[in-house]
Amino acid sequence: MGNSVVEPSPFAPKDLPVLPVIQGVRVAACQAGIRYANRTDLLMVVLDPGTVAAGVLTQSKTSSAPVLWCRKSLEKGGARALVVNSGNANAFTGKKGAEATRMTAEAAARAVGATPDDVYVSSTGVIGEPLDASKFAHLLGDLAVKAAPDAWHDAARAIMTTDTFPKLATRTVKLKGGDVLINGIAKGAGMIAPDLATMLVYIFTDAAVDQGVLQGMLVSGADKTFNCITIDSDTSTSDTVLAFATGTAAARGAPRITDANSADGAAFAAALHDLMHELALWVVKDGEGLSKFVTINVKGAESDAAARRIGFAIANSPLVKTAIAGSDPNWGRVVMAVGKAGEAADRDRLSIWYGDIQVAKNGERAPTYVEKTVAAYMEGREVAIGVDIGIGAGKATVWTCDLTHGYISVNADYRS
Amino acid sequence: MGNSVVEPSPFAPKDLPVLPVIQGVRVAACQAGIRYANRTDLLMVVLDPGTVAAGVLTQSKTSSAPVLWCRKSLEKGGARALVVNSGNANAFTGKKGAEATRMTAEAAARAVGATPDDVYVSSTGVIGEPLDASKFAHLLGDLAVKAAPDAWHDAARAIMTTDTFPKLATRTVKLKGGDVLINGIAKGAGMIAPDLATMLVYIFTDAAVDQGVLQGMLVSGADKTFNCITIDSDTSTSDTVLAFATGTAAARGAPRITDANSADGAAFAAALHDLMHELALWVVKDGEGLSKFVTINVKGAESDAAARRIGFAIANSPLVKTAIAGSDPNWGRVVMAVGKAGEAADRDRLSIWYGDIQVAKNGERAPTYVEKTVAAYMEGREVAIGVDIGIGAGKATVWTCDLTHGYISVNADYRS
Repeated sequence: MGNSVVEPSPFAPKDLPVLPVIQGVRVAACQAGIRYANRTDLLMVVLDPGTVAAGVLTQSKTSSAPVLWCRKSLEKGGARALVVNSGNANAFTGKKGAEATRMTAEAAARAVGATPDDVYVSSTGVIGEPLDASKFAHLLGDLAVKAAPDAWHDAARAIMTTDTFPKLATRTVKLKGGDVLINGIAKGAGMIAPDLATMLVYIFTDAAVDQGVLQGMLVSGADKTFNCITIDSDTSTSDTVLAFATGTAAARGAPRITDANSADGAAFAAALHDLMHELALWVVKDGEGLSKFVTINVKGAESDAAARRIGFAIANSPLVKTAIAGSDPNWGRVVMAVGKAGEAADRDRLSIWYGDIQVAKNGERAPTYVEKTVAAYMEGREVAIGVDIGIGAGKATVWTCDLTHGYISVNADYRS
Repeated sequence: MGNSVVEPSPFAPKDLPVLPVIQGVRVAACQAGIRYANRTDLLMVVLDPGTVAAGVLTQSKTSSAPVLWCRKSLEKGGARALVVNSGNANAFTGKKGAEATRMTAEAAARAVGATPDDVYVSSTGVIGEPLDASKFAHLLGDLAVKAAPDAWHDAARAIMTTDTFPKLATRTVKLKGGDVLINGIAKGAGMIAPDLATMLVYIFTDAAVDQGVLQGMLVSGADKTFNCITIDSDTSTSDTVLAFATGTAAARGAPRITDANSADGAAFAAALHDLMHELALWVVKDGEGLSKFVTINVKGAESDAAARRIGFAIANSPLVKTAIAGSDPNWGRVVMAVGKAGEAADRDRLSIWYGDIQVAKNGERAPTYVEKTVAAYMEGREVAIGVDIGIGAGKATVWTCDLTHGYISVNADYRS
């Protein structure tokens, strides 16, 4: 089983982007045989001394052992290595799970000559199955030696579970004194029994950024990107977004970023957020069994937070998602989702658009509504739904995909 | 299209219960041709003078016109007639919708010699389509005349949209002085494009109950029954639970119930709640495309409210629901759902059971866990999942069904 049963996403890119070398970052992947045969499942990233880390981790109350480990390492905020395994999430594995993570971090620390709290660990795959770190901890020394600055495609592939394509993005930021680079890789919500959806995102830059500044930028970026996407409303025990800044661009004359609001800080943050936006959309575009990519724009809500909650109520509604799958202009389901969101709304001020076509106006079907026109619009691969609540200035955009037979097949039809 | 494409629920009863006559209640249904041909779509219930009403209505912010009307009639709390149409929800229809409801209520009031605020109206079916009440308002006079005390099956059928079977239940309560009867009919969450899930429940009793006491009993009953079921997490604009008490049993010597905590009050409330429980489970057992009925018992949470939210997080998780559809003992998805519920939880105290089989204990896979045994249990039509959060005394039970290809077919494959 595994990928063999899954059709590639219709949004899979024809060509993968080629990511530039980032000074101070080297990557290597190998087949450790953690769960699947004939595929890479272990990634090691070696980071030069002086690298700082920032992170955004799952809010799950049943967070995995590696998430708890990363949370602790982030308190210090330095970074010398990242180890990611796929095939086993090391979640809900009790004390044995914590020991497996510690063993992994200690082996990585030895391999790069650092302390364990300079190491970040992620695991993705089956839940509740003990992870035997002795299966791969001894491989980390070799990986550290063979790590190369240009093996980005290998890195993106090694963290995939049931993703149908690797996800990579890169940006160059022109700062006063010198350019800096940002590379990112992600794995998304391609879930196959018995795996859970886990989103893992790793971002690397040679910019010299203060750790606190980087952390702030990552949080605000995640808020508008990774925290605005949903496949099926479920939340992984392992979701992890980490950013590593080596500072090596300073040697080329790039300025140190000590203030997010400076011109250089703002330029860097804009590029970082843009890259996060691209990776977030790749995750959605590889959602399980999807046939359509959906953008939901909410405006006129009581607040931005209310707009976001309304957007998620629409995006997570199985009735809305199945109607989109069927190219059915069933905007009554959007009305329903707005109604159930629990946020302030006034039926008689509500307006709804599908693409540029207004379907509802001030609490009623729009007088110009023609079902056939909307149905034709919905046949497209990308569907945008606009909602004006009509009572305030709050707005938000949420991205999702449709709910198809493919989702059921992937999650119900194939036993582990 | 319509029912023809839908398989009957595997839980459809072989025989419908025969409901007794309740003095003061007469019912009649007819084909008004509101949307579908060759099926009854209009129900009128005539209630004797002196009947009191209680109600629980959807919390949706985009409530339908009939829901708003019922809310107003409940302020007075008397009842002389109930009119229900299927085929059109009269929701999101603006001022025209309010006028259609008023026209319906006025026609019903004329037919029974009452005032419009003694009339209750429900509409279920397509959203956003103007409802032309002139199509059926003139039929209400005839219906009032031909209304009969024993046409309960007709009544239960007339309110169906895409339900695959009528839902009826009855109870007899032994009180000091004389028995009282309770009948109930319901329609559930069988949704076909372009219809929305709407739950409508009507309960009739000949008990003499004070309106405020009946309202309190209905609210507390709904809290443990209709508010504890979920098919797909979506909330209708039209959900309505109404109870009507004619008081005619008093003539047979049955006592007036003026206190929910008296012996008679408690006996009546227990029977009422039991009937509501039965109807709620029938609604779940006719969930769209379901193959399995699922009970989720949560205990050990911080509070009952927390337990219920955790229960709903599990019940609404597409990953949990699809795993159940596939008879996959993927209890890691239950861990995930507990984690995302946002309630206090401690991974290392969490225990999970499938039926009587413990699968997770104190934050780890149970030492006795054998996947094959659990998979065999899950092949059954009814699956019970037990969760002990392990941190408090809060408990709740939530009922749901699995998520199958049938749900996608019903909601995505067939265009309106």
